[in-house]
Amino acid sequence: MAMDGYKGFLGLLVSALLVGFLSVIFTLVWVLHYREGLGWDGTALEFNWHPVLMVTGFVFIQGIAIIVYRLPWTWKCSKLLMKSIHAGLHTVAAILVIISLVSVFDFHNALSIPNMYSLHSWVGLTVVILYILQLVLGVFIFLLPWAPLSLRALVMPMHVYSGLLIFGTVIAAVLMGVTEKLLFALNSSGYSKFPPEGVFTNTLGLLIVVYGALIFWIVTRPQWQRPKEPNSVLLQPNGGAREGPEGLAVNFSNVDTSDSKLNSEAAAKKRNVTVDEAGQRSTM
Amino acid sequence: MAMDGYKGFLGLLVSALLVGFLSVIFTLVWVLHYREGLGWDGTALEFNWHPVLMVTGFVFIQGIAIIVYRLPWTWKCSKLLMKSIHAGLHTVAAILVIISLVSVFDFHNALSIPNMYSLHSWVGLTVVILYILQLVLGVFIFLLPWAPLSLRALVMPMHVYSGLLIFGTVIAAVLMGVTEKLLFALNSSGYSKFPPEGVFTNTLGLLIVVYGALIFWIVTRPQWQRPKEPNSVLLQPNGGAREGPEGLAVNFSNVDTSDSKLNSEAAAKKRNVTVDEAGQRSTM
Repeated sequence: MAMDGYKGFLGLLVSALLVGFLSVIFTLVWVLHYREGLGWDGTALEFNWHPVLMVTGFVFIQGIAIIVYRLPWTWKCSKLLMKSIHAGLHTVAAILVIISLVSVFDFHNALSIPNMYSLHSWVGLTVVILYILQLVLGVFIFLLPWAPLSLRALVMPMHVYSGLLIFGTVIAAVLMGVTEKLLFALNSSGYSKFPPEGVFTNTLGLLIVVYGALIFWIVTRPQWQRPKEPNSVLLQPNGGAREGPEGLAVNFSNVDTSDSKLNSEAAAKKRNVTVDEAGQRSTM
Repeated sequence: MAMDGYKGFLGLLVSALLVGFLSVIFTLVWVLHYREGLGWDGTALEFNWHPVLMVTGFVFIQGIAIIVYRLPWTWKCSKLLMKSIHAGLHTVAAILVIISLVSVFDFHNALSIPNMYSLHSWVGLTVVILYILQLVLGVFIFLLPWAPLSLRALVMPMHVYSGLLIFGTVIAAVLMGVTEKLLFALNSSGYSKFPPEGVFTNTLGLLIVVYGALIFWIVTRPQWQRPKEPNSVLLQPNGGAREGPEGLAVNFSNVDTSDSKLNSEAAAKKRNVTVDEAGQRSTM
């Protein structure tokens, strides 16, 4: 299927995967080389699963889940399959996030360190709860076939907005976590002497910001949206493989799925329109 | 001028102003009541201007500057006036940010504390540089009358994206700064005992996140966009008071300013269309 600016998309996708993968590697090097390593024994080794699983699940995998509808080679796949992959990746991320939370609470309790006193923990736990809520609501409203199209259309702008807000807030929480851990581990006078661990982990923080920036750019380009399927809503009103525009990953505005202009736009897209024309499509 | 969901917009705007104002008040109470107060003498009193000016300028005022095109009572004002207000607010924010940076470098130098060692400082200084770059480019390309429409159309999606990315990254940097300062001031064992200052300042952190969430919601609703002026580009190709869609604050996709569908949409908007129809307009 044709895509406007395919090379640009591919370049950004590869960059995002590279930077995301590098973030995970950096986190592993941090805990294995600079810190105590990994284990599950109530010590710092157990705590160290917390950053590893958060960066892997809550940052890297969540980012991929967000842009999965944008991969042009999946546009021939059914919408139901793509929704399942989207929800599946978010579920994997959620499981890693929960294990990650268990590791830090376990570690705190084993060492009698109080829980939930820091801003990092307040923002972090809030965003975990919102993520699970978003996942459950998403499955019930968009993946399972029961919700009426009108409800889907109503909820979609909120689903997209809160998904991106959660992703951004997760990155902020991770940056706070890195800051906390470096100040605990090196203490402030040690951190201020530019030790290798400080510089290395600051770089990890920047990588995570760049990863977020790449995901946000990819997901807000209107010309890289999955094409809408014309008349699909009228043909199959109760969901299924071809469900039309309401299921688009990033689409704040296309709430009226039976609108004729929309469908003619989708048809125009399939005829491979120019960048300027495609640029007029509603998105994000 | 008519606006879809005017009451909802007003409610969110008032909430954003309230939460933003409260964030500034909380920051003042933090430094005046819990910390040493304000001064300009190289001590902690001078450092304390850093959070006050950052929350006021980089968070509160920048947020207002971002949504200023969305205030429906300004839609009768010329585009040039609104651009001047947008750029003016960002300039005020930039000045406060620079003073805020001077205060922290002054404080560090007076006490021989190294500069630029923390992740907070790396992310923070990067985003200050990007903010000033964004401001200068914005003035030259969009405010001053010299840039051709084709350049404006090309740059607008980038301007909107980087503006929102900068705003989000600023919030992350502020949350890291709050985390750092609490760990320095209370040290980790003090912070973990839930002292009033810790709970109060964590609440400040949450307020800033909520403020960001409200600004992002307001600025990504397509139905709350400033209406486009039909045929304005054809009538006044070199800018001026009525410049058409390329100047919209949040509009990633409307790059072809002479597109006839766009102008007919703007005309439809002026005739006060329904939410569903307006929801199809391209935005963000």
